[in-house]
Amino acid sequence: MLSTTRTTKDAALRLAAARLRENRAAVFAANEADLDAARAAGLPAPLLARLGYGEKKLQESVAMLGALAALPDPAGRVLEARRLDTGLLLRRVSCPIGLVALVFESRPDALVQMAGLAIKSGNAIIVKGGREAEHTNRALSSIVAGAGVDAGLPDGWLGQLETRGEVAELLALDQYVDLVIPRGSNEFVRHIKDTSRVPVLGHADGVCHVYVHADADLDMAARIVTDSKVQYPVACNAAEVLLVDAAIAGRALPRLVASLESAGVALELCSRSYALVGAGPGRVLKGDGDWSVEYLDYRMAVRVVDSLEEAIAHINRYGSGHTDAIVCTMPETARRFMDEVDSASVFHNASTRFADGYRYGLGAEVGISTGKLHARGPMGMDGLMTYKWKLEGHGHVVADYASGTKVFEHADIDASMEAGDGHL
Amino acid sequence: MLSTTRTTKDAALRLAAARLRENRAAVFAANEADLDAARAAGLPAPLLARLGYGEKKLQESVAMLGALAALPDPAGRVLEARRLDTGLLLRRVSCPIGLVALVFESRPDALVQMAGLAIKSGNAIIVKGGREAEHTNRALSSIVAGAGVDAGLPDGWLGQLETRGEVAELLALDQYVDLVIPRGSNEFVRHIKDTSRVPVLGHADGVCHVYVHADADLDMAARIVTDSKVQYPVACNAAEVLLVDAAIAGRALPRLVASLESAGVALELCSRSYALVGAGPGRVLKGDGDWSVEYLDYRMAVRVVDSLEEAIAHINRYGSGHTDAIVCTMPETARRFMDEVDSASVFHNASTRFADGYRYGLGAEVGISTGKLHARGPMGMDGLMTYKWKLEGHGHVVADYASGTKVFEHADIDASMEAGDGHL
Repeated sequence: MLSTTRTTKDAALRLAAARLRENRAAVFAANEADLDAARAAGLPAPLLARLGYGEKKLQESVAMLGALAALPDPAGRVLEARRLDTGLLLRRVSCPIGLVALVFESRPDALVQMAGLAIKSGNAIIVKGGREAEHTNRALSSIVAGAGVDAGLPDGWLGQLETRGEVAELLALDQYVDLVIPRGSNEFVRHIKDTSRVPVLGHADGVCHVYVHADADLDMAARIVTDSKVQYPVACNAAEVLLVDAAIAGRALPRLVASLESAGVALELCSRSYALVGAGPGRVLKGDGDWSVEYLDYRMAVRVVDSLEEAIAHINRYGSGHTDAIVCTMPETARRFMDEVDSASVFHNASTRFADGYRYGLGAEVGISTGKLHARGPMGMDGLMTYKWKLEGHGHVVADYASGTKVFEHADIDASMEAGDGHL
Repeated sequence: MLSTTRTTKDAALRLAAARLRENRAAVFAANEADLDAARAAGLPAPLLARLGYGEKKLQESVAMLGALAALPDPAGRVLEARRLDTGLLLRRVSCPIGLVALVFESRPDALVQMAGLAIKSGNAIIVKGGREAEHTNRALSSIVAGAGVDAGLPDGWLGQLETRGEVAELLALDQYVDLVIPRGSNEFVRHIKDTSRVPVLGHADGVCHVYVHADADLDMAARIVTDSKVQYPVACNAAEVLLVDAAIAGRALPRLVASLESAGVALELCSRSYALVGAGPGRVLKGDGDWSVEYLDYRMAVRVVDSLEEAIAHINRYGSGHTDAIVCTMPETARRFMDEVDSASVFHNASTRFADGYRYGLGAEVGISTGKLHARGPMGMDGLMTYKWKLEGHGHVVADYASGTKVFEHADIDASMEAGDGHL
């Protein structure tokens, strides 16, 4: 895969799209079998909807593969170039990581997306989809894997696992597998993280905060807090905790609580906020409870804080480093919040729900990482790339520089030239 | 540390340099105590030299701290900027990783270098030096830590561990420590990698290769192979294995062997190369032995391979992903080698010994990573940096985009503006 050209990769993407269209009947039949089994097992409607792979999902997959083929090649980009000496040219060049395992639950369309990203990035992949989508995944991966090989990718570029036992074995093979990206429930991702010897990129928790500062515009604050909580409460970037500055809590809390409650949100209140808004339906006194709960539901914790510093300290202590927002007017206040909150995404006067690869304009989202190494926050195809150092000389040896016969020039040069150009 | 300004960081570096000069007598006395103990324990001369911290080393430390103060701030660089919509600006901004542990053996000057890099990058650090340098390290870290605090860094920005038990405890604290960078012997680094829950960047092995292709210039090949082996054999980037193409082995091997043997290198030969060069002093028949040995000595393994493909396969199977070089004339041959060898550094017609942060022009070298995530190969201060996503809006909510009331613009904008600029 490391030496696959852009032409081959794009041909593989287009052939995979064509084969999906040609073999739609077989895919739909496989999906019907999965749906029948899921209905028989009494799966709830939202999970059935995620499991379905019909004409609309197929068209989306085909369009996604076509869009990937149209993108520039993420491999072979010169990220940095330096002439170390006459005839001795160093370049740092992007390249695929190698073998990436993508482990996810349910959604069969994710399998096609991951396979497409693997082709374009030049990585070999191993995919493991949800057991409920067993027949659909098998049909899709067989079509896409075959199209890749027929277009010139090496045999075995796409591997599929089907059981949890196979995943457990894979997570021990750190000498072969470079990276695991799990997507799914908290418990699922945490289990992968806890048991893997292979590096894992992703996030288990999304305990996101909105902090309403003393100088906030209260209409804006209500709009942002409510959108952050209810626009899609099961998402990892939905807010779970509202922090309100004590200086405006008396005015702000009734307004914020009214907005949230009219959207159907139940509230767990600290003793100070409970004292300010009083009892009511759906309100409970949280007191000194656990501030790291990810509700993923129409439920939110509320706490009064005495200062910007206390808000930052609360978030850094109880948050998950995912996405946190401040609503405030003064730019200096926003700057301090955004610098000192140690999270992947830090927002000023915007809903936490914007933390997403598509909304960030990254194209397909490979995942969202709450780790700080390699990739942080929403990651696009760049998360599947690494780099290597390429040095081209004309017989250069270090002894000449150690003896002082030669001295390094270390001249940075324009990195926009193509990789593979001749010597400079 | 996350919000420390460039002014404070550079003042801390300069104050640390001044305090080192002022307190040189105490440092030298502490170093004498370490040297006395080391001599009493019978430490060999090269280790005593590494342990010594006299006037010359102190001047180097002072110069290094001054050079760091003169560098641009690695934090706050805008790496990517995109207007998501009117008044909604997304920026990806470099920032320190957080808390980094630097664990190394012996050399007390490394402690000052690591502390300087931590200040400039804005990371809090925990250092653990070698037990032999106990008194010197204690004196140096106390001077540098105090200078940092006096210049405005937060108390506790530099922590020091002294025992292996403390290191073992630290490696379990993945909720607090973001990264461990170990430097030292293979066994030492491998032990850290095997026992750490905290991510580790570094390299345990340097099994580097030079492959002499069929169309190689033999004078150049002899020069590169010999420099790669003997210029400093104990370095991780010294070559351990010579691969020679069968098509020229009959002509090339006598020439290469003569060059290596005249530099004092003992050879372990595969059966084909042994048949070609015959028996001799310092030559042993390796046969089908272990091809992954890191000699770190005047000793090299030699193998005849039948093709470029076999050379690449050998390196990818037995190498350590550190640094590998080809000597050849045809650019297309070099391109294939450099694309398909899965190592951090891949060289054409240059000695493996160039794989080094200083020679690459990276400034101070934080370490060399053979992993593929976050940083690969020689890493400079960039290895201590991550990034966060900063989104600045004016009350923007996702509901407007979900309903179609607003649409994303996703306009890439010039990222060269300063972080902290106002809204666009």
